[in-house]
Parts: sequence; structure tokens; C-alpha cells
Amino acid sequence: MKMKRKKASNHQPAFLFDLDGTLIDSVYPHALAWQEALEDIGIHLPAATIHRRIGMSGATLIHAFQRESGKKLSSRDAKRSEEFHTNAFREYSHQVRPLDGARELLEELTRLRVPWAIATSGQKDDAAQALKLLKLGRNVVIVTKDDVEKTKPEPDLFLVAAAKLRMELEKCVVVGDSVWDLLAAQRARALGVGLLSGGIGEDELERAGAYRVYRNAADLLAHLDDFGILSE
Amino acid sequence: MKMKRKKASNHQPAFLFDLDGTLIDSVYPHALAWQEALEDIGIHLPAATIHRRIGMSGATLIHAFQRESGKKLSSRDAKRSEEFHTNAFREYSHQVRPLDGARELLEELTRLRVPWAIATSGQKDDAAQALKLLKLGRNVVIVTKDDVEKTKPEPDLFLVAAAKLRMELEKCVVVGDSVWDLLAAQRARALGVGLLSGGIGEDELERAGAYRVYRNAADLLAHLDDFGILSE
Repeated sequence: MKMKRKKASNHQPAFLFDLDGTLIDSVYPHALAWQEALEDIGIHLPAATIHRRIGMSGATLIHAFQRESGKKLSSRDAKRSEEFHTNAFREYSHQVRPLDGARELLEELTRLRVPWAIATSGQKDDAAQALKLLKLGRNVVIVTKDDVEKTKPEPDLFLVAAAKLRMELEKCVVVGDSVWDLLAAQRARALGVGLLSGGIGEDELERAGAYRVYRNAADLLAHLDDFGILSE
Repeated sequence: MKMKRKKASNHQPAFLFDLDGTLIDSVYPHALAWQEALEDIGIHLPAATIHRRIGMSGATLIHAFQRESGKKLSSRDAKRSEEFHTNAFREYSHQVRPLDGARELLEELTRLRVPWAIATSGQKDDAAQALKLLKLGRNVVIVTKDDVEKTKPEPDLFLVAAAKLRMELEKCVVVGDSVWDLLAAQRARALGVGLLSGGIGEDELERAGAYRVYRNAADLLAHLDDFGILSE
């Protein structure tokens, strides 16, 4: 996306979007794919527990599960589990759809010349699939785990995304469905906004520091004036 | 389960358990199976929206989805969708496990001669599978949608379960992971207890009237004294 810098006011924010659960409906398939992948290496965890870890990168997630299950994993087990998850998730991918209002929200921001980017803990390949699903072109600014050393809740993904937009992170709004997005937003001094479309409840998102919580991307689109963005 | 009536004090409650998300880890597979089943009849709904409807019977669920999607369904479509869901769910069933502490909680209640039963909006066949998974014998008191005219949030399932235990419903504790369990409990004047193991958040369960919310069955087992039940 090309920015017309002179049109943007100094106070106009940029938007940094999470992908899974925020723009596409992929959190539940990810949760079940991880459940299978962990079972394969002998770790049994309930789906609701795994659900609350989605949004972290695979490696961080496995580290957390290892601690929670009290089981010590070799790096070979961890790698095997990540690969298993990737394959299991791809079997679900025919079922993944854009979330309500996601395409319309991104289109409207583009029309209003509000800078935006996507920052995901996921892999480049899965992100490319998501862009197709969202019918987004190749010039979208997107940052994946392959671009940073540490993913959410570390703020690196959002830092890189903001830098690519040439915006200060303090002026950005981070939009996500997981507590990890909101914790990363806080650490980066960005404004965190929660969406319920990933299935995490309002109180969990608020406790993680959400400035506002909306039902989904469509609901955020209907409330852009909360951020001083007015349709022309 | 045989009750030794003379051992039970007048104030000792009975426990009525929901099944999916409360005793077995089947809510996420149900959500995705319903998503596929609805897609098959042209209704697209996000997984998080479907997740929050799990716990109702198939027919009630389809009715709600129909209203939410603004689409009118024939009774043939509805039947087709229910059957699709049943088959899709069975493909996930290899992945379903008992939830943490479920077996231990039921064993401890039996040991302490506290009456308990299972009341589920699900089908008899799926319930039979769940009993096997939980290693429960044939003499467990269980009520399914096949035993009542209307399922949750109508209180009928719990009414029948309490009657089978020869307990007044006002003396029963209803334990479930969905708002429908808790709404049904309120309507039946029973005490509602929420478990987080189905992935619904604490605030949603409390707003639906939960007297207490525990992490899972294991956590409820550790807090049986909240109900005046003391290990001997």
C-alpha cells in the first residue's frame, strides 16, 4: 500500500492487525491442530487451554505447553510437533474463511489513506494463503515470524510493522483477538484493541490491557470514529 | 449409582453434570463440526459464534443460527444439517479425551455417597461413547435429549435428572461450561456452577448466573467444601 503522507494528519493513527482470529477465522482449527500435534509427542492438553495460547509462535507455544504439562521435550520433539501442527492445520484450511467485516475494514482504511499492516506470529506460507483468502494484493505490508527473532508477546512483530509504515509505534493501534497481541501492544506503548472473533472473552482481553473491545472487524469498522477517523 | 439414602444429610446437595466441555473435551470439535454442517446448507458463521451456542440441542442451535444468519431453512435443510454435524463430529471423536479431574470427581462423589447424574443436550449414542471414555458403568444416571421434549436452556433435562435421583432440584448443583447450563439452572432454581474447561470465559459464566466458577472438574474436586461436602 502506498501512503500519501501529506494527507495524513499528525494525530492520525496507523493500524497493525493480527491475522488469525482477527482477519481470518482460523483460531479453532489451529487449536485442534495443536492438540493433535502435542498428543503425537505425548502431551495431553485440553482444547480450551491450547486456545488461550494461540497467537504465540509455535516455538513459544511448545515451550509454554512443556512447562504446563511438566514434560521435558527434546528440540527434535519440538520440531516434530511444529511440523505435525503445520500439516494438521493445512487439513483444516479448506474450512477457514475471512471474518465478518475484515475485507471491508481494510478497504475502508485504504480508501481513507490510513496506514495499516498485518503482523502475525504465523508462518510466511500460511500468511500468503490468508492474503489470498482476503483478496489482498502483493503490496500489503505484512510481517511474519520469519522476519523477527521473537514473536508475541514480545513487541518485535509490531515494531517491524510500524517501521515498515514509517510510523512511531506510540501512534499505532494494535488490533488482535488474543491476550498476546494486547500484551505486546502494551510493551510497545501502542494502543491495544481487542476483537471477540477469536473466541477469547471480553474480560480476558480487557485485563490484558485492551483500550476497547469490539465484536469483530465489522464492529470496529462501525466505530472508527472512536479513533478520530471520520469517513469523508 | 445406588444411593444409600440414610447416609445423606438433608442439606447435602446432589450434582447434575453437563457432559460436553464439562466432563469430556468435545466442545471445539462440536464447534467445527457445526461450522461444516452449516456451511453445507449455505450458512457461514464464525467458529467463536458457534462455540457460544454449544450446549443447546441441535434443533435449538439451528433455529438460533437461522435467525442470526437471516436465512430461512426448510425442516429438510435443518435435518440434513443435524445429520451432517453428527457425521462430522464422529470424524473428530478419536481426538476427544476426558477433561482433567472428571473421572476423579465422579469417583470421589460416589465414594462420599453424594448423588450425581449427567444431563446432556446431546444424543444417546454420543453419550454412550462418552461414558466409555469416562470408564463409567451402565448404572450411571444419564439424561439425554432423547428423554425430554426441550433441551437447555429449558430446565427439562435437569428436572428429569433430579427426579431420577429422587432429589428436589432446589437442592441440586448444576455444573456446566456453557451459559445454557447456567440459565437452565437459574430457571430450575438450582445452584449453577461454571467450569472454564469448555473455553467460555469467567465473565460470561458469571453473568449467566454462576454461583462459582472453577477452572475444570479437578479444580471443583479440590473445592468440594464450598458445598459443605467434606472428605471423610
